[in-house]
Amino acid sequence: MIRKKERYSLAIVGATGAVGQELIEILEERKFPVGELRLFASERTAGSSVSFEGNSHVVKLLGRDAFSGTDIAFFCANDAVSKEYAPIAVSSGAVVIDDGNAFRMNPEVPLIVPETNRAALFAHKGIVAIPNCSTTPLVMLLKPLHDAARIKRVVVTTLQSVSGTGKRAMDELMEQVRAILSFREIEPRVYPHQIAFNCLPHIGSFDERGESSEEVKMRNETRKILGDPLIQLTATTVRVPVFRTHSESVNVELGKRIPENEARALFSAVPGVIVYDEPKKDLYPMPVDVSGKDEVFVGRVREDATVPAGLNFWLVSDNLRKGAALNSVQIAEELIRGQ
Amino acid sequence: MIRKKERYSLAIVGATGAVGQELIEILEERKFPVGELRLFASERTAGSSVSFEGNSHVVKLLGRDAFSGTDIAFFCANDAVSKEYAPIAVSSGAVVIDDGNAFRMNPEVPLIVPETNRAALFAHKGIVAIPNCSTTPLVMLLKPLHDAARIKRVVVTTLQSVSGTGKRAMDELMEQVRAILSFREIEPRVYPHQIAFNCLPHIGSFDERGESSEEVKMRNETRKILGDPLIQLTATTVRVPVFRTHSESVNVELGKRIPENEARALFSAVPGVIVYDEPKKDLYPMPVDVSGKDEVFVGRVREDATVPAGLNFWLVSDNLRKGAALNSVQIAEELIRGQ
Repeated sequence: MIRKKERYSLAIVGATGAVGQELIEILEERKFPVGELRLFASERTAGSSVSFEGNSHVVKLLGRDAFSGTDIAFFCANDAVSKEYAPIAVSSGAVVIDDGNAFRMNPEVPLIVPETNRAALFAHKGIVAIPNCSTTPLVMLLKPLHDAARIKRVVVTTLQSVSGTGKRAMDELMEQVRAILSFREIEPRVYPHQIAFNCLPHIGSFDERGESSEEVKMRNETRKILGDPLIQLTATTVRVPVFRTHSESVNVELGKRIPENEARALFSAVPGVIVYDEPKKDLYPMPVDVSGKDEVFVGRVREDATVPAGLNFWLVSDNLRKGAALNSVQIAEELIRGQ
Repeated sequence: MIRKKERYSLAIVGATGAVGQELIEILEERKFPVGELRLFASERTAGSSVSFEGNSHVVKLLGRDAFSGTDIAFFCANDAVSKEYAPIAVSSGAVVIDDGNAFRMNPEVPLIVPETNRAALFAHKGIVAIPNCSTTPLVMLLKPLHDAARIKRVVVTTLQSVSGTGKRAMDELMEQVRAILSFREIEPRVYPHQIAFNCLPHIGSFDERGESSEEVKMRNETRKILGDPLIQLTATTVRVPVFRTHSESVNVELGKRIPENEARALFSAVPGVIVYDEPKKDLYPMPVDVSGKDEVFVGRVREDATVPAGLNFWLVSDNLRKGAALNSVQIAEELIRGQ
């Protein structure tokens, strides 16, 4: 699909955003064989400069001729931009790795977490999607359970950081905290309500049934990635005043019992998963420890005796790394490695 | 049990703590017929003064002779103090309303939320316990569901504020936030880890099975209050960087289906419960709005189609008010009102 080369020509759409910045850092960190690097953004930030491998790159305004000669185009702007420009990139000969929701449920677009469903990647027709940042770490842990004991039902509550919304939301949390500490009024802009010292059970938009788009995504994407439309999943997604890294409280009902030690062994065997689970020694995953880390951390693994074969666990994953930029770069690595 | 009088002699043990302070405020607010008011605390804060109905009261050191002539003694210090002094108060003729965990599961001690199981109160033998601050709002909402459609199983994740730990934890969150904003090192004291901008899946202590004491309490207390040892409940309890008011994400499996409108009607009919549920208009309960309120707020009520009769909801309740001090004062009001 991608011709073998020594170095690949890359484009990043949304290069100045929270995920775009992380993407540039990770490409450098993992020594991705980058030839040309083209960076694109909207009018607001185009013209600024970004450093990559010691060279300064000017961020350009995205246009229809942006992708000629590009091997891989990363999209991390917004869904409208992806919908308009991803097909243009594909017809220019690039493979698109899209961070957003525009193509995830399109049956022609593979939805990929390399550790979970790498094989599905190579059926792509030019566009590959990565899951939502709350789905990615979840499916990495559900996959070995599903293989071992068929998952019947998942009940999950997420505690999601503001960086999932982007840089502006991180600034807003910081500003609100400063304002509150100096007894000034706060004025929510990014979120409909104060986020500092608060919890908002609201991520995305609400449908007629009262479910949020984030909650719907978690169910649909999990089913697609695990290739099983029978998996039942109900989610409640909550925004919490944490800058970076999402947490999830997960309850799973299985087709047969998996003792907790066996569950820990199954999790440990997944590349990119770290079991961190000694609660009696105060050791469990937390956002401040996991921020900046590539791995998905899991702890509080315990059998749930309220059903014949139940399991509870607590996962923590950096939403900008594995939840977004890292997963995209790993997909690019698999694309150039080939089938 | 308590002889009718015009005014009652009260004692508050732990009068300078977060719950004690709230208790004094609520007694005044609700015009409880207070005669004598005796305030007790430990060596750390005894000697300080507290204002009540315009008069200054000196907080005294607790001793064995503290309760002679006391009608009702509120205990909100810690479990060791309750264990030692509650029996002394009872033998002095007082009825004890205990805020802690010392007596909750004692079969001779009623565990009371007046809106939920008032009748059980009058079987007391001198000590009445109030539930944990995360159990109280939960049972208020589970009770009408259980009456209507027998609850089979509850999966709950809590997002609990630091005031549940007490004043020192509130100070710690504030200090850590200040330190982080001025790029100073933080040094956790009350919690084993940083709480600012973080989530700790750790409330209480952990047992051999990896369950926290808070998680065990929620199951056992719910069964006792609803009078049904067959209710299955699994909890994951999490501390979040919120000063005041707990949130809970609740999933319930029922014996028969309750459509969401019917569930909202059942909740609305409970005294002390407010349904606040128009997510499309960004209206759902949140800690910053509910802090200082007496009522338990519920929103995000939606059927869970992953089981034949499932329901999700999101509750928010001020842990110092209904979760502690208010519930205690309401019990005192019922005691003087009589059977």
